[in-house]
Amino acid sequence: MDKTPDWVAVDWGTSNLRAWAMTAEGRVLDEATSDKGMGQLKPDEFEPALRELTAGWTQGPIRVIACGMVGARQGWIEAPYARVPGPPLPEGLTHAPSRPDLNVGIIPGLAQSDPADVMRGEETKVAGFLALNPDWDGTLLLPGTHPKWISVSAGEVVAFRTSLTGELFAALSGHTVLRHSVTTDGWDEDAFLAGVSEGLARPEALMNRLFAIRAESLLKGLQPPAAKARLSGLLIGTDLAGARGWWLGARVAVLGAGELLRTWTAALAAQGAAPETADATEATLAGLVEAWRRSQ
Amino acid sequence: MDKTPDWVAVDWGTSNLRAWAMTAEGRVLDEATSDKGMGQLKPDEFEPALRELTAGWTQGPIRVIACGMVGARQGWIEAPYARVPGPPLPEGLTHAPSRPDLNVGIIPGLAQSDPADVMRGEETKVAGFLALNPDWDGTLLLPGTHPKWISVSAGEVVAFRTSLTGELFAALSGHTVLRHSVTTDGWDEDAFLAGVSEGLARPEALMNRLFAIRAESLLKGLQPPAAKARLSGLLIGTDLAGARGWWLGARVAVLGAGELLRTWTAALAAQGAAPETADATEATLAGLVEAWRRSQ
Repeated sequence: MDKTPDWVAVDWGTSNLRAWAMTAEGRVLDEATSDKGMGQLKPDEFEPALRELTAGWTQGPIRVIACGMVGARQGWIEAPYARVPGPPLPEGLTHAPSRPDLNVGIIPGLAQSDPADVMRGEETKVAGFLALNPDWDGTLLLPGTHPKWISVSAGEVVAFRTSLTGELFAALSGHTVLRHSVTTDGWDEDAFLAGVSEGLARPEALMNRLFAIRAESLLKGLQPPAAKARLSGLLIGTDLAGARGWWLGARVAVLGAGELLRTWTAALAAQGAAPETADATEATLAGLVEAWRRSQ
Repeated sequence: MDKTPDWVAVDWGTSNLRAWAMTAEGRVLDEATSDKGMGQLKPDEFEPALRELTAGWTQGPIRVIACGMVGARQGWIEAPYARVPGPPLPEGLTHAPSRPDLNVGIIPGLAQSDPADVMRGEETKVAGFLALNPDWDGTLLLPGTHPKWISVSAGEVVAFRTSLTGELFAALSGHTVLRHSVTTDGWDEDAFLAGVSEGLARPEALMNRLFAIRAESLLKGLQPPAAKARLSGLLIGTDLAGARGWWLGARVAVLGAGELLRTWTAALAAQGAAPETADATEATLAGLVEAWRRSQ
């Protein structure tokens, strides 16, 4: 099988680099991943990392469309933010400096002025989701380290809201006294849903309810799977409380994968929402294909 | 000056060990500190650490009254919790295993069943504060890694409420994307008080307001002193929201020292409370003296 691609689609985040060998028609020939995320690369290390990952596909000239933190200020080159409200894929890519046989166009992130907010990479998922679901209006939820609630209407991003929920869970689990209570591979779904309800109903109690996880471990034998699931639920529930206007009575689709997709969807469903779901990687790829098409 | 103490008062926390050479009448002859906190010691390392710190005071038999995490399950010996409601210093000390010339009595911590909560060390501060302020009724606030709101009436601890606020600030500042925005020795008091008001008024917005600190750094040039102070204010304001019933319309005294005492007092004052303040170390020492007297 000839795998020489017409172009390469790249999702380059803080922790990982993922590339797909593509045909001009948007068909995937092959894919490759590496742990050379933007977080560990200096500006002059991006080109070698990308060449290394794609060397098996072609030695000839290569065109690349990339999204994600590769376009951050600390990335290969800063791709200036586009503004919302506006389309998820505005005109124009930022071209990264490289030898001339490599042509890399980076999709701009989106910035919102008030409240101040930013995204890099998620705009491509939104574009891909809309390409796969034309005329879809509603709220997209992208769970993750920094979950994003994104309001979409008539093909444009109207507004969005990022939270620190996922990273907060990691910091609490790894770097506070709660690590003694929540370290486990286990999970207790009832404890998770109870945590969601509690966080949603009483977000003002969070500071105390976090410590109570430790106290119940000491006094009442709260087990690690329940403690970990309750912690996750409390944080997601608090996020749902603040984002109530984004999901209550709205059409919602959750774009994700694996446990993150499952838990956020379960949390919303338990509160009476009926979220649709979609695969985040498919959305990313569809968004990169959409950007490729427009650049022709 | 003869510094041979009649007994030694010890405050032994997770990070530090502090000892005072005392007369039978409760006068301080000398003091000494070490970084040999409970967190880094195995059970058989407590006795050498204490002997090393007090070796300059006497080579003879020595009596010690100790409070704090030294009595935790991971400490020298577990001092079982006393229950609330009840006095801050109930009868009975737990004696640590040692050679017979060293007699160490550990003050029990306090446990609350519902909501589950625990303290170790703070009960001694409460006892000391009440010894210095007889007949004082109201809410004591002890800021710190795990701030505690403690309701005191008729010489007893009625109930208490611990939060994770201080440790959460450290985890967010050191182990999330916010570290890029808040690392500074500076401080912006207006940003702090605005954060307190925001956290108190809209605790449900916390997950988003945390991320917004990063976004405003990127988009609006939010400076580190303002970012750090706002983060602290948001967390303290959220704590105040959950603890509203503990301070609103209540007599409140803040037991602390330094910046922690100053910021929490300023936060409460800005919300119309009129907190009294007291020095935490004086309260600890007065509590240890009170425990010594009762053990005679």
